[in-house]
Amino acid sequence: MNAPLDQILETFENPHPGRPYTVRIACPEFTSVCPKTGQPDFGTLVFTYVPGPKCVELKSLKLYLQQYRNLGIYYEDATNRILDDLVGLLSPRRMTLEAAFTARGGITTTVTATFEAER
Amino acid sequence: MNAPLDQILETFENPHPGRPYTVRIACPEFTSVCPKTGQPDFGTLVFTYVPGPKCVELKSLKLYLQQYRNLGIYYEDATNRILDDLVGLLSPRRMTLEAAFTARGGITTTVTATFEAER
Amino acid sequence: MNAPLDQILETFENPHPGRPYTVRIACPEFTSVCPKTGQPDFGTLVFTYVPGPKCVELKSLKLYLQQYRNLGIYYEDATNRILDDLVGLLSPRRMTLEAAFTARGGITTTVTATFEAER
Amino acid sequence: MNAPLDQILETFENPHPGRPYTVRIACPEFTSVCPKTGQPDFGTLVFTYVPGPKCVELKSLKLYLQQYRNLGIYYEDATNRILDDLVGLLSPRRMTLEAAFTARGGITTTVTATFEAER
Amino acid sequence: MNAPLDQILETFENPHPGRPYTVRIACPEFTSVCPKTGQPDFGTLVFTYVPGPKCVELKSLKLYLQQYRNLGIYYEDATNRILDDLVGLLSPRRMTLEAAFTARGGITTTVTATFEAER
Amino acid sequence: MNAPLDQILETFENPHPGRPYTVRIACPEFTSVCPKTGQPDFGTLVFTYVPGPKCVELKSLKLYLQQYRNLGIYYEDATNRILDDLVGLLSPRRMTLEAAFTARGGITTTVTATFEAER
Amino acid sequence: MNAPLDQILETFENPHPGRPYTVRIACPEFTSVCPKTGQPDFGTLVFTYVPGPKCVELKSLKLYLQQYRNLGIYYEDATNRILDDLVGLLSPRRMTLEAAFTARGGITTTVTATFEAER
Amino acid sequence: MNAPLDQILETFENPHPGRPYTVRIACPEFTSVCPKTGQPDFGTLVFTYVPGPKCVELKSLKLYLQQYRNLGIYYEDATNRILDDLVGLLSPRRMTLEAAFTARGGITTTVTATFEAER
Amino acid sequence: MNAPLDQILETFENPHPGRPYTVRIACPEFTSVCPKTGQPDFGTLVFTYVPGPKCVELKSLKLYLQQYRNLGIYYEDATNRILDDLVGLLSPRRMTLEAAFTARGGITTTVTATFEAER
Amino acid sequence: MNAPLDQILETFENPHPGRPYTVRIACPEFTSVCPKTGQPDFGTLVFTYVPGPKCVELKSLKLYLQQYRNLGIYYEDATNRILDDLVGLLSPRRMTLEAAFTARGGITTTVTATFEAER
Repeated sequence: MNAPLDQILETFENPHPGRPYTVRIACPEFTSVCPKTGQPDFGTLVFTYVPGPKCVELKSLKLYLQQYRNLGIYYEDATNRILDDLVGLLSPRRMTLEAAFTARGGITTTVTATFEAER
Repeated sequence: MNAPLDQILETFENPHPGRPYTVRIACPEFTSVCPKTGQPDFGTLVFTYVPGPKCVELKSLKLYLQQYRNLGIYYEDATNRILDDLVGLLSPRRMTLEAAFTARGGITTTVTATFEAER
Repeated sequence: MNAPLDQILETFENPHPGRPYTVRIACPEFTSVCPKTGQPDFGTLVFTYVPGPKCVELKSLKLYLQQYRNLGIYYEDATNRILDDLVGLLSPRRMTLEAAFTARGGITTTVTATFEAER
Repeated sequence: MNAPLDQILETFENPHPGRPYTVRIACPEFTSVCPKTGQPDFGTLVFTYVPGPKCVELKSLKLYLQQYRNLGIYYEDATNRILDDLVGLLSPRRMTLEAAFTARGGITTTVTATFEAER
Repeated sequence: MNAPLDQILETFENPHPGRPYTVRIACPEFTSVCPKTGQPDFGTLVFTYVPGPKCVELKSLKLYLQQYRNLGIYYEDATNRILDDLVGLLSPRRMTLEAAFTARGGITTTVTATFEAER
Repeated sequence: MNAPLDQILETFENPHPGRPYTVRIACPEFTSVCPKTGQPDFGTLVFTYVPGPKCVELKSLKLYLQQYRNLGIYYEDATNRILDDLVGLLSPRRMTLEAAFTARGGITTTVTATFEAER
Repeated sequence: MNAPLDQILETFENPHPGRPYTVRIACPEFTSVCPKTGQPDFGTLVFTYVPGPKCVELKSLKLYLQQYRNLGIYYEDATNRILDDLVGLLSPRRMTLEAAFTARGGITTTVTATFEAER
Repeated sequence: MNAPLDQILETFENPHPGRPYTVRIACPEFTSVCPKTGQPDFGTLVFTYVPGPKCVELKSLKLYLQQYRNLGIYYEDATNRILDDLVGLLSPRRMTLEAAFTARGGITTTVTATFEAER
Repeated sequence: MNAPLDQILETFENPHPGRPYTVRIACPEFTSVCPKTGQPDFGTLVFTYVPGPKCVELKSLKLYLQQYRNLGIYYEDATNRILDDLVGLLSPRRMTLEAAFTARGGITTTVTATFEAER
Repeated sequence: MNAPLDQILETFENPHPGRPYTVRIACPEFTSVCPKTGQPDFGTLVFTYVPGPKCVELKSLKLYLQQYRNLGIYYEDATNRILDDLVGLLSPRRMTLEAAFTARGGITTTVTATFEAER
C-alpha cells in the first residue's frame, strides 16, 4: 500500500526556506486496525519538523492518515512507515514523529522515531 | 501590507540595557483569515525576547496584531512575517515567536521561529 | 443496517434485579463517517442505565459500536438509533446516552437522549 | 443587520421529533467588536437546546456567527439577539445560550439567557 | 465612605428587560487592607445577577472596586457593603456576591451573600 | 465465600449516633479477577454512608477487600455483594457504593448501588 | 479537654445579622494523633456556616485547631466534637464541617457533619 | 522464581532495526506483595527503551508482570529484577524502568533504573 | 524611592554557607500602579537564589514589596529594580526574579532577570 | 537534638549496589514549629538519591521526620540538617532534598539542597 499512500500527500513551497523554524502538527484522530486481532487501534500522532524545501499541506496529511483507517498494521511499523513517507516527500532538515496509542489490556504504548538530515 | 503594519508598532527605550533579561508576551486573541477558504483562523502568539536597545510597547503590539484580523495569510507565513517586523523594529539580542493555532479538521498546528543576533 | 447491528449485541441476566442500581459505561473510541463529506467523525459515548431483567455484555457492545466505523450517519441520528437498539434489547428501567463528538470547524457538538420506562 | 443574518442560518428536519433529547453546541471562536472602543471582543458561545421540528445545521451556524466578526455590539445585546434569531428559526422546546467573554481590565463577563416554549 | 463610592458606579439601560437573563462578572483583582493588622488582603469577587431596569457598566465597576484598595475593612463587612451598593444602584431581580479571599495563616475564607427582590 | 468474608470485617460503636453525619471512604486499590478471562481487574471503590449503631473499622475493611484479590467475580456482582456484606454488618441509615473499574478494550465501567433503610 | 479548648475560641458580632449569608473557612493544616497507633493524622477541615449573632475570629480558630496537634482522637469523634464546640459558641443558623483526612493504608476517609438550628 | 518468569515473555523482530527509535510502555496496574507485612503493593511501571534486534510483545509483558501479583518482593528489588529480565531477553540499546508505587504511611516511593548497552 | 525601600529589607546569616543550596520564594500578591494609566497592576514574583553570606527575612520581604502598592512603575523597571535591591543587600551567588503580570487588553507579560556573581 | 534523631533511622543493604539507580521518596506530611512565632509549619519533603552501600528504611524515615513535629527550627536549617543526617547515615552517591513549605503571609518558600559524593 506504500506507493498509493504517498501519492495522496501534497506539499507547498517553504515560504521562509532561509530560517530553520519548526512546525508541530498534532493529529489526535488516528486510527488503524490491529493485524493480529482485527480490532481497531486509536492514537495521537505528533509531527515536529524543520522544513527543508517543502511543507506538507494539512488537508492532504489528513487524507493520507485516513488511508490507515482499515489497514492492519503494528504500532512500531506504522510509526516508522509514516515517518519514512513524509521524509521521502518533504526532505526536511529534521522530523520527529511521536505516536501515542490508547491503552490495551491496561498497557499504553508510545513510539517515537526521528529523522535527521546529514549535514 | 507589510509597510503600513510596522508603522503602527511603537517602542520605548530599554530601561536596563546592560542586563540580558527576558520578556515573554502572550497574545491569546490573534485571528486572521485563511487565504484558501476565507474562513477565520484563531491562535495564540507567544513572543519571548531579550531586549536590545528597545522594548515593544504593549498597546501598539495589540493594535499591530489586529491588522491581521481580516487579512488572508497562511500560518507559516504569518509567523515568520510578524517575527521579521518585530526584529526589524527592536533589534533584539534574541527573539522567538511561537504561534499555536486552533484545530482544523481535527489537526492542530504550531509554528515556532527564532531570530538570534550575530555576535 | 439496523437489523444486523442488534444481532451482534449480547446480554446476561441481571444478577441483582431487585435493586435499582446504576451502570455507567464510557466508550471513548467511537468513530463513524459523515454522510455529507465522507470524512470520519470521532466521539465518546457514555451510557448510564438502571438494568431491568438484562445487562449488556461489554465485549459485544464494543463489537456493536465498531459496526458504525464505516457507516455514514449524522450525530443526532446515531445517538438516537444506538439508544433505541439498546433499549429494545435490554428493557432497562432507564437509560441515557450522551454522545460527545470532537470539534469540526471549531464547533463541538454533544447529543444526549434518554429513555424512561413507563411505570 | 438582523434580517440578513438569519437568512444565512440553515435547518434540517429533526430526525427523532418524538423524543425530547438535548443538543449542546460549543463555539469557542466567537468574536465581535466593542461599540465603544472599537476593540475586538472574544468569547465562547454554548447553545443547549431541545429541538422542536427543526435542528440547526452546524456549518451555517458557523457562518452566521462570523457575521458578528466586524459588528459593534455589547455583550448583553449580542447574547439576547443571537438567542432570538435561533429561537425564531428553530422553534425549539427550550434553548439556553451561555456567552463567556474573555477578560477586559481584569474583569470577565458571562451572559446567560434562556427561551422556554409555552406549554 | 459609602456615599462617594456609589457615585463612581455607572449604569446603562437593560437592553432586554423582558427576559430574566443572568450576568456573571468575575473580578479576580480585588484588594483591600486588614483593619487590624494594616496588611493588604486579596480576593476574587464574583457577581451573578438578573438585571432589573439597569445593568452595571464594567469600567465603572472596576473603578468602584479600586476605591477599596487602601481602605481598612473586614471580609464579612466588605462583601455585604459592596452587595448593598450594587443592589441600591441597580434594583436587580436577584444578585449574589461571592468573595473568595486568599489564605492567611493557612486559612482561606469565602463570604457569599445574596439579595432577592420581593415578588 | 460470602460467609468467611464478613467475618473479617470489624466494627466499632458510632460515637455520635444521634446526628446523621456522613462517612466517605475511598479505596483506590481494589483488585479482583475476571471469571471469564482469568485476567485481573482493578477499580476504585467509594463507600458513602450515614452510620447507624456501628461504624466500619478501616483496617478490617482493607483486609476484607483484599479477600477479592484472587477471586473470580463480575463487576455488577462484586459491587452488589460488597454492599450487601457491609449493610448486613453495619445496619446503616443509608449506604452507597460506587465502583469504578479501569478500562478494558477501551471501555470503562462504573457500577453504583445504594441501600436505604426503611423509615 | 473539651472545656479548655473552647476557651481559646473568640467571636465578634455579626456585622450584617439581618441577612442569612454564608461564610466558608478552609483549614488545610489540621493534624492530630491516632489514638490506636500514636501516628500523626493530617486533614483539611472546611467549615461552612450561616452566622447567627456571632462570627468566629479566624486567628483564634487557628489556635483552637492547634490544640489537637498532639491529641489522640478518632476521625469521627474529632469531626463531631469540633462541630459541637463551634455550634455551642456561635449559635449559627446552620453549620457544616467536612473533614477530609489523608490516605492511610491506601484508604482515604472524609467525615461530614451538619448542625441546623430549629426554626 | 526468576527462571520461569522470563519464559513467559515473548519477543518479535524489530521491524526497523536501522533506526534508533524509542518505545515507551506504561503499565499502571502492577501489584505485588510486601515481604515484611504481607500487604499488597501497587505501582505504575514505565519502560522506555530503544530496541536492539527484538521488541517485547505486549500481551506477554502483561502476563509476565502478573506473575508478581502474589510474590513477596521489595520495591528496589522488583524494579531491578524486572529490568534485568527484560534486558536479558531483548538486548536493547538502552532501557529505563521507572516504578512509581502508591503511598504507604503517607510516603510515596519511585525507583528508577537504567541499562545502557556498551558501545 | 530606591533608598528608603531597601532599608525595610532585613537579612539573617546563612546557616549553611558552605553548601550552594537554593531558596525559591513565590509572592503571588504583588501589586503596583501603571504610571501611564494610573490603573493597578497585579503579578506574581518568584525569586530563586543561591545564598551567599546572607538570606532574606521573609516578613521584611513582604513589607518591602508592599511599598510598591501605590507606586507608578513599568513591568520591566520594577523587575530589574527589585532584583537590584535584593542583590545589593544579599550578595547572593546567583539570583533570578521572574515577574508574571496578569493580562491587560488580552495580553500577558512575564519579565525574567538574572544576576550571577562573578567567579 | 541531632544525636538522638539519627539513631531512629534504619538502613538496609542496597540489593543492587553495582547499578547507579535512583530512589525518590516524597513525604507530604512534614510539620515542625516556627522558632520565632511558635506556630506550626507544614511542608512536603522530596528526597532523591542514588544509593551507595545502604538504602533508608521507609518506616524509620517516617518516625525520624516525626521527631521534628514539635521542634522549633527554620526552613533553611531543617532542610540542610535532614540532608546531613541522611547523608551521614547512607553515604549515597548523590542525594537531593527539596523541601516545599506552605504559604505564610501569602509567600511560599522552597529550599533545595544537594550532596554529591566526591569521585
